Amino acid sequence: MELLKERILNDGYVIGTKVLKVDSFLNHQIDVSLFNEIGKEFKRIFENMNITKILTVEASGIGIACIAAQYFNVPVVFVKKHEATNMDAETYESEVYSFTKNKFYKVRVAKRFLLKEDKVLIIDDFLANGNAACGPIDIVRQAEAEPVGVGIVIEKAFQEGRHKVEQTGVPVKSLAIVTSMSEGKIEFK
Amino acid sequence: MELLKERILNDGYVIGTKVLKVDSFLNHQIDVSLFNEIGKEFKRIFENMNITKILTVEASGIGIACIAAQYFNVPVVFVKKHEATNMDAETYESEVYSFTKNKFYKVRVAKRFLLKEDKVLIIDDFLANGNAACGPIDIVRQAEAEPVGVGIVIEKAFQEGRHKVEQTGVPVKSLAIVTSMSEGKIEFK
Repeated sequence: MELLKERILNDGYVIGTKVLKVDSFLNHQIDVSLFNEIGKEFKRIFENMNITKILTVEASGIGIACIAAQYFNVPVVFVKKHEATNMDAETYESEVYSFTKNKFYKVRVAKRFLLKEDKVLIIDDFLANGNAACGPIDIVRQAEAEPVGVGIVIEKAFQEGRHKVEQTGVPVKSLAIVTSMSEGKIEFK
Repeated sequence: MELLKERILNDGYVIGTKVLKVDSFLNHQIDVSLFNEIGKEFKRIFENMNITKILTVEASGIGIACIAAQYFNVPVVFVKKHEATNMDAETYESEVYSFTKNKFYKVRVAKRFLLKEDKVLIIDDFLANGNAACGPIDIVRQAEAEPVGVGIVIEKAFQEGRHKVEQTGVPVKSLAIVTSMSEGKIEFK
């Protein structure tokens, strides 16, 4: 997606060897008109898959998922990463390892919101080591629903995320695939 | 907003005396078409205030803010509640007391994303004790920007939130005001 790549080149920047900072338009400040173009692109890619629900992970996936859902006419469900006192007792849970925090944490979805007949598109802002995507896939399968695809805004192809997600059998489509960020220079596939 | 009140009556339910559960359409599963109507209503209410930015709090405010921002043609910024390794060093911070967690936590916005000339609409899903709204107001004022209004989807009028926010001088507009939930029966103003 050219518009996205241009935006990453113009407004993104690299910290160290692994962090691509895009918080001026993607995950802190949000450019909603860009999100609309992202939503249309996800719709084009996953058009014929009879998606019934979009699943994402709080917090930075929620905006992308909500804007994209307008093009699919389906509800969004977001996976909860943090304990909440008013959460249902009946939940699907998965454990996700966080490299940045160096620990496992639980992700949860109330059972009421995933049905056997659901065909679920999982959307997230980044694909890096793949753990954040594998948790939702696991949850969808616990519900005996079908994870039909993973839609990613920015994939860091030099990390193992794609390999890990593809091992689950779920296809991954990324709108921008960064192959290298060495010496601060962002290169795309 | 009648559509919202009907939805709360149909799909919401009360737990104990203070929790109104609306997670089938507002803050776990999201009905994006309802969010569009909510967005239009916020636009109608805050139309003439020259809003330049919408500020919300992660996680459940993000979807509402993004959908609403389409009607204002402005960016969204979301206040971060959780530590992130890739956060800017230069941030505005405020301390917010959480009744459910019985502790203070910090909320943060990178300084780059709030400018002196910004007229900021703060949007959130609930107004209960008011702390979640006062943190963002404090942050906007630290940036010497103007908090022009607080837009709330559901206000629980039997808690002290409105009083606390109005003490800051910022007007509060709520789309549904719940005056009582005693014995599980939801009543609106």
